[in-house]
Amino acid sequence: MLNLFYAAHTCALASHIALEDAGASYTTTRISFSGNDQRKPDYLAINPKGRVPALVTDRGVLTETPAMLAFIAQSFPRARLAPFDDAFAFAQVQAFNSYLCSTVHVSHAHRMRGYRWVDAGNAEAIAAMQRQVPQSVYEGFALIEQGMLAGPWVMGETYTICDPYLFTLAQWLEADGVDIARLPRVIDHRRRMGERPAVQRALAAELARAG
Amino acid sequence: MLNLFYAAHTCALASHIALEDAGASYTTTRISFSGNDQRKPDYLAINPKGRVPALVTDRGVLTETPAMLAFIAQSFPRARLAPFDDAFAFAQVQAFNSYLCSTVHVSHAHRMRGYRWVDAGNAEAIAAMQRQVPQSVYEGFALIEQGMLAGPWVMGETYTICDPYLFTLAQWLEADGVDIARLPRVIDHRRRMGERPAVQRALAAELARAG
Repeated sequence: MLNLFYAAHTCALASHIALEDAGASYTTTRISFSGNDQRKPDYLAINPKGRVPALVTDRGVLTETPAMLAFIAQSFPRARLAPFDDAFAFAQVQAFNSYLCSTVHVSHAHRMRGYRWVDAGNAEAIAAMQRQVPQSVYEGFALIEQGMLAGPWVMGETYTICDPYLFTLAQWLEADGVDIARLPRVIDHRRRMGERPAVQRALAAELARAG
Repeated sequence: MLNLFYAAHTCALASHIALEDAGASYTTTRISFSGNDQRKPDYLAINPKGRVPALVTDRGVLTETPAMLAFIAQSFPRARLAPFDDAFAFAQVQAFNSYLCSTVHVSHAHRMRGYRWVDAGNAEAIAAMQRQVPQSVYEGFALIEQGMLAGPWVMGETYTICDPYLFTLAQWLEADGVDIARLPRVIDHRRRMGERPAVQRALAAELARAG
């Protein structure tokens, strides 16, 4: 049995949606960032990085969204969530998801997690990072808008593990101060994703426990 | 035929080593960061992100180190550089490489590329980022030191695409101001990697053209 550790409003949503897409049997465990659960010994024993998501499997714990998404796709091949039989096509999927984690998510993280990269007491530097977020997040999404979203899904006609991950990060655009009118294709993708039952189930499950 | 676009002293080295490990037929094209080649139209036509590495294949261009490493491993299966037939083991490989790109490399990038996350004219904020690099890069490697490097290779007895990537980022520890005496296992791995002929060939090729 798989168990997904997540926190509300985090990138864990991507794996949550993929588990729904895959038709997986799984459970979830919600941890609270406001309660700082991710730094408590019980959770650090599961994920020493002190972050979400983490996926507990029969063979051990997996972390890092691109790896977890690929694992879900490979473990549930009938759902056809990634082209494992085609090295180039699979690399394109991985490249997209790697870009999301190493560039787009990182730009976003400078709004709330600036203390990772400057002294936590340096309020001016942290504020300077926050001021740049609308521009840096926009630039990350602009490359997607202009050339990385084939349509209707990220990889074209076939829905893959890129789609729930893009949808998840696109949830944060307004809070990051990005003018979504400049990203019509990303926003259309987000809207269509929001209509999928798997996405609605994952979101409903997270919201039901968020109180 | 594969062609690797790289710049000296960058994470492109990881893919360069993996191509050597794989016994691939490939060419390389060096671009100069000091000449700002990565922002010129010729290169942006290859990689709109304006970064290295990029791998030109018969089917198109691949970017993002974790994806390129997986592509090289899958394209040259005799080299056994990744366990594609085992979803959990492959996800562990991908999780390690994803951590390197989204956490370890990102911390390092705050030394030279702070303008990505604050206004480029804000010298104080950029200096504040630079001051934090020794600590943030150390913390990223400390998790590897303490629990992610099974030994003798990252994944244990079997050499994988995690090893050239870790080696590549470990090249930068001294310049990032990290006390390497605190990372004996990472440094031992780096030393043993440096003894491998494939690594020596990739390094020699990059140095021969670096002048």
